[in-house]
Amino acid sequence: MSEGGRLIGVGVGPGDPELLTLKAVRAIERADIVAYFAKAGNQSNARAIVADRLKGVAELPLLYPVTTEIHRHDPRYRDALAAFYEQAAATIAAHLEAGRTVAVLSEGDPLFYGSYMHIHTRLSPRFPAEVIPGVTGMSGAWSGAGVPIAQGDDVTAILPGTLDEAELARRFADCDAAIVMKLGRNLAKVRRALATAGRLERALYVERATTAVATTLPLSAKTDDSAPYFSIVLVPGWDGGSA
Amino acid sequence: MSEGGRLIGVGVGPGDPELLTLKAVRAIERADIVAYFAKAGNQSNARAIVADRLKGVAELPLLYPVTTEIHRHDPRYRDALAAFYEQAAATIAAHLEAGRTVAVLSEGDPLFYGSYMHIHTRLSPRFPAEVIPGVTGMSGAWSGAGVPIAQGDDVTAILPGTLDEAELARRFADCDAAIVMKLGRNLAKVRRALATAGRLERALYVERATTAVATTLPLSAKTDDSAPYFSIVLVPGWDGGSA
Repeated sequence: MSEGGRLIGVGVGPGDPELLTLKAVRAIERADIVAYFAKAGNQSNARAIVADRLKGVAELPLLYPVTTEIHRHDPRYRDALAAFYEQAAATIAAHLEAGRTVAVLSEGDPLFYGSYMHIHTRLSPRFPAEVIPGVTGMSGAWSGAGVPIAQGDDVTAILPGTLDEAELARRFADCDAAIVMKLGRNLAKVRRALATAGRLERALYVERATTAVATTLPLSAKTDDSAPYFSIVLVPGWDGGSA
Repeated sequence: MSEGGRLIGVGVGPGDPELLTLKAVRAIERADIVAYFAKAGNQSNARAIVADRLKGVAELPLLYPVTTEIHRHDPRYRDALAAFYEQAAATIAAHLEAGRTVAVLSEGDPLFYGSYMHIHTRLSPRFPAEVIPGVTGMSGAWSGAGVPIAQGDDVTAILPGTLDEAELARRFADCDAAIVMKLGRNLAKVRRALATAGRLERALYVERATTAVATTLPLSAKTDDSAPYFSIVLVPGWDGGSA
């Protein structure tokens, strides 16, 4: 264990800066370096959430490699990402070795489908590391919609929209509540799978939850199939009946 | 819609008061009434998390009926709970009608397996209502353990420990990551179901996550089957391999 700096994975919540935790605010304000993932040429969503709190702190953007030409099941895609995470971890390790505290921002919660985990698994064996949990995007979505997602003995399934249509339909039919992440180009497929499972009627589409431009509508009322990658589909498990 | 008070469901997070959001703190400090669920004779966990912020505000404990003599599948159990939620909603409605803002505390996130939803569904059609999402107990658990729970195309299942053993085993075998809530007396059954599904080895047992008395250990190393109701079992979906 190094005597040097400290690695902190900081969940910054779903979008509204008011949904930062007290602990996240303190970690960001005390850090020597604030790091965040971003696509080249794009703003980091996580950075935008904490922008007002970055008064002069050193920032370390971690820019994903451009992989739009490579199919995500191509081994070269995996290799490019692995090399990127190795390099990002090495850059952060150099700061930790110099005794600096590095806060790595994560939208939502760091260890729930977040990129931070790739840094954590590489560096937590070597340096003191801490993870500050955050409000997830899905909690932001159902709270904004005011829709209870699950109760009692409900089984809840969290499904990436990248799954095959038949697999999605099978799983929609085999749970009480469902949350679909990673919609992007997958919305038309998700919609068909919900119809196959007989569950389209109660599904909600939520975009940019907890922000000033949040949108919530029944999925059946959405007239197109375009969806940003961080939009979410919710299928509530509970209809409000019984106790 | 009444011109009166405002109902706010406030997620207070998994236990550490530092994991309150800025928005939750403000809502609690500005409320006229702070309500919370508790068992008669027991302290409310949600109240304990915000205790230092309740400087003289009016408090409204909502005390669950004593149902220990009634089996949970007995209709009388459901009826007793329904009557309780009706009464609690009526009490809160009287405050709202008088123009008071009522913050109802929820451990974790209000609409995710929380009692607040029973108030929300009854009162949100009649009064202005808002839900402030919170950090869930499960996020607190995997963050404290430093264990990435899911990534990429992982399917995550959230399962109540109250399910039948065979059903638990079937579902453990049909997901990547699993989180088991509501352990209580169900831990021995959950353990057997994980063994049947071949997934006991990587399961973690987490108790009182994010508090000063948090415990995390491999479930296979836990030598007894006693577990508080709000303990959690985690089965990580990702082994840290590949990118």
